[in-house]
Amino acid sequence: MDIEAQMKGRGGTRTIDVMGAIRAKVTGRALGPGDRLPSIRSLAAAMGVSPSTVVEAYDRLAAEGLIRARRGSGFYVSPTVAPPLALSEVEPRRDRAVDPFWVSRQSLDADDAVPKPGCGWLPPVWMPEAALRRAARALGRSEASVLTNYGSTRGAPVLRRLLLTRLAEDGIEAAMGQLMLTGSGTQATDLICRFLLRPGDTVLVDDPCYFNFRALLRAHQAKIVSVPYTPSGPDVARFEQILGSERPRLYITNSALHNPTGATLSLQTAHRLLTVAAAHDLTVIEDDIFGDFEPERSPRLAALDGLNRVIRIGSFSKTLSASVRCGYIAARADWIEHLVDLQVATSFGGPSPVATEIIAKVLAGGSYRKHMEELRQKLTRARRDIARKLGALGIEPWLMPRGGFFLWCRLADGQDATAAARAALEEDVVLAPGNVFSVAQTALNFMRFNVAHMSDPGMWDVLRRALKAQPNR
Amino acid sequence: MDIEAQMKGRGGTRTIDVMGAIRAKVTGRALGPGDRLPSIRSLAAAMGVSPSTVVEAYDRLAAEGLIRARRGSGFYVSPTVAPPLALSEVEPRRDRAVDPFWVSRQSLDADDAVPKPGCGWLPPVWMPEAALRRAARALGRSEASVLTNYGSTRGAPVLRRLLLTRLAEDGIEAAMGQLMLTGSGTQATDLICRFLLRPGDTVLVDDPCYFNFRALLRAHQAKIVSVPYTPSGPDVARFEQILGSERPRLYITNSALHNPTGATLSLQTAHRLLTVAAAHDLTVIEDDIFGDFEPERSPRLAALDGLNRVIRIGSFSKTLSASVRCGYIAARADWIEHLVDLQVATSFGGPSPVATEIIAKVLAGGSYRKHMEELRQKLTRARRDIARKLGALGIEPWLMPRGGFFLWCRLADGQDATAAARAALEEDVVLAPGNVFSVAQTALNFMRFNVAHMSDPGMWDVLRRALKAQPNR
Repeated sequence: MDIEAQMKGRGGTRTIDVMGAIRAKVTGRALGPGDRLPSIRSLAAAMGVSPSTVVEAYDRLAAEGLIRARRGSGFYVSPTVAPPLALSEVEPRRDRAVDPFWVSRQSLDADDAVPKPGCGWLPPVWMPEAALRRAARALGRSEASVLTNYGSTRGAPVLRRLLLTRLAEDGIEAAMGQLMLTGSGTQATDLICRFLLRPGDTVLVDDPCYFNFRALLRAHQAKIVSVPYTPSGPDVARFEQILGSERPRLYITNSALHNPTGATLSLQTAHRLLTVAAAHDLTVIEDDIFGDFEPERSPRLAALDGLNRVIRIGSFSKTLSASVRCGYIAARADWIEHLVDLQVATSFGGPSPVATEIIAKVLAGGSYRKHMEELRQKLTRARRDIARKLGALGIEPWLMPRGGFFLWCRLADGQDATAAARAALEEDVVLAPGNVFSVAQTALNFMRFNVAHMSDPGMWDVLRRALKAQPNR
Repeated sequence: MDIEAQMKGRGGTRTIDVMGAIRAKVTGRALGPGDRLPSIRSLAAAMGVSPSTVVEAYDRLAAEGLIRARRGSGFYVSPTVAPPLALSEVEPRRDRAVDPFWVSRQSLDADDAVPKPGCGWLPPVWMPEAALRRAARALGRSEASVLTNYGSTRGAPVLRRLLLTRLAEDGIEAAMGQLMLTGSGTQATDLICRFLLRPGDTVLVDDPCYFNFRALLRAHQAKIVSVPYTPSGPDVARFEQILGSERPRLYITNSALHNPTGATLSLQTAHRLLTVAAAHDLTVIEDDIFGDFEPERSPRLAALDGLNRVIRIGSFSKTLSASVRCGYIAARADWIEHLVDLQVATSFGGPSPVATEIIAKVLAGGSYRKHMEELRQKLTRARRDIARKLGALGIEPWLMPRGGFFLWCRLADGQDATAAARAALEEDVVLAPGNVFSVAQTALNFMRFNVAHMSDPGMWDVLRRALKAQPNR
């Protein structure tokens, strides 16, 4: 079943390299169905490997069904088989490459007891548990249709109205027709990418950026380019240069409490960025998932732009519940209409009425604002305490964020974040090494820490040991 | 905002045709960014329209941003703008084309009070409401992590184990590694399409088939071909012919209680179909969403095939709740591993733990099997009663299904199902006209009726009037 893993035991990385090279040609359509593969001898020479390595690789690809041997005439791409979209190598849990999926899968699939300073959400005890329990009990008394029906294509009107009020507080005046609910924040971004992108289109992200933007864009077969992020937003000079040379179709960013850095976009950078975007007809997705953690509201691209070329997305996963899944999109009304169709086609409707009912109940209840107020104070203390403890290990925050639960930190000289993350995982601690956030792979010496997941003393022992780990190749 | 609709009032269908032709060229990449469009004179001649029609169309496309005028040198495809993926024309609710989205959007967005004989699910009173209320109340007492956390990437183990038992009852022996939970049944199909398809790939569906397969495949920019469905499954001779000539990558079907016909796949057809599929290396998605409505189990492709080239998907939307959304995929373990990555990239994880907790509670409770037993008996009576009432209007079921809530019916001679559906909607009744199910558009004289939504006497009056409607062009 797990061919790659079996092979690693037998063949080694050269075979994998050859397989990867052929897969890339088929995925990129340089080789089409029925096309003949390079001869074993010529590929061996071109890749500097032995002919037997190529034979092994071809045999394995044939076993997978991607290619076929014809007796006496070489190997061919299978006639009807388009290559499946493999986003990562299939490997056993511990051995998976430290790629944009690594942190997600390790964090999501870890036992509750596993310390996860690398994860991207708050522990249950930091969430509004009492309000969620009340909402769940109320759900048991709600209208039958809430419990049984699909719900409307744009999502529950009561929650959309609550959201419009909250958008107005951010300076974004939107009409009901400009807002739709989605299955999650990630699904919101995904729908927009499906609407705007074609395979091969270029998309701009920040360096560093939220790793799942990279995973998502890989799934869209986009070409990903990145712009360095500064403490006040993307480097605008580089941004303009990239727009001129790479002509990206889309820019995806967080404005308030940027992930992973915790930086805040300045008003001046926002204005300059939008001016340049207009000149190059660039569409922007502003993911505002961390906005509620700010002590006071910072500039939003969507507010300056008036939802013209900026699409605002968000969700309630970080502040309210990641289990009760629901995201939203605010954008031009004609785009929303098309995005609603796309959501019907790909999810048959909007988010679960059960989910929107629970979220609306919690948001409308009096306790939510108080919970957020306490949470912000608690996080301010935690950021300070954890920064001090990290400092004792020679680890320094790149900046001290105004809010949120992330510290984007530079490790001590010579420490390798990827090696440390691998070593920590051996001891059941999930870390988030810098390069999973970096398209340009410039963050080997960085790590993102979640201050709400760092109270376990044993975790600190593991971290100390892990930071001594050296790369294994 | 609504350019198409405004234009219809002003320009007429020829302008729309020209716009459509240009859009198709850009979408199909026959015209790339920066390419010059045909001259006004030449396109007018080629399409047999007046030059002013082409000017109007080009002006409108320029207003949309798809193309740009350069002074004195003609029109060009906009340099950075790939065309957004518009799955349907944006039109006001009542005027939308009767396309594969029509029934979904009208059904999902209709008020609870609107009679919906065209819709694809049961009314709330037919669902296991009491069990759902109990499960919601129990949710209020569940572990905090169920209420607040993302949950694991493959979905709650307790529900996956329950599902494995149910698959075994269908003769499908699967290991835990061959099963994953998804956000919904539609999302299950969508993930598989993302994994296997590239734009332009050919996909085979039944004629007629579930309309949202068509909508979903449009979103994947697949070429859709169809095989006539007989009372015992697809026409195998045609199936084999199409596999030879069209070389589809994928076949999507329902085996038990096929949607919309209610037909059941015979064992002989299943065996022949799989033999032909193997010869052409075809992958099959078997959507088993209606299986629990069968009086006794019928053959499943996945059972014969052993989850080799057949992927089994399903959900709980039809029997348990469409609000508590959750689907599943059972397939080869190596494919599941890649599909899990894709789900992380595009939805950040599996279905909501809140949803899986409620479903597992209801499934494991003693009342669910009893509920389904009663439901099947109730539906048997309803199918018989509604068939008799329809017969009095000259409407005859194509076959009498063994289970479920659909009757796929031939209207009386000369009746136009699309015109009837439009007329009924004017009186707030949602019907499902045949051609939304038919790729070959051979079902103008057919309609799908949901027997559980036909108790309203006023609805029958509307239906009688609507059946007299004639097409408006």
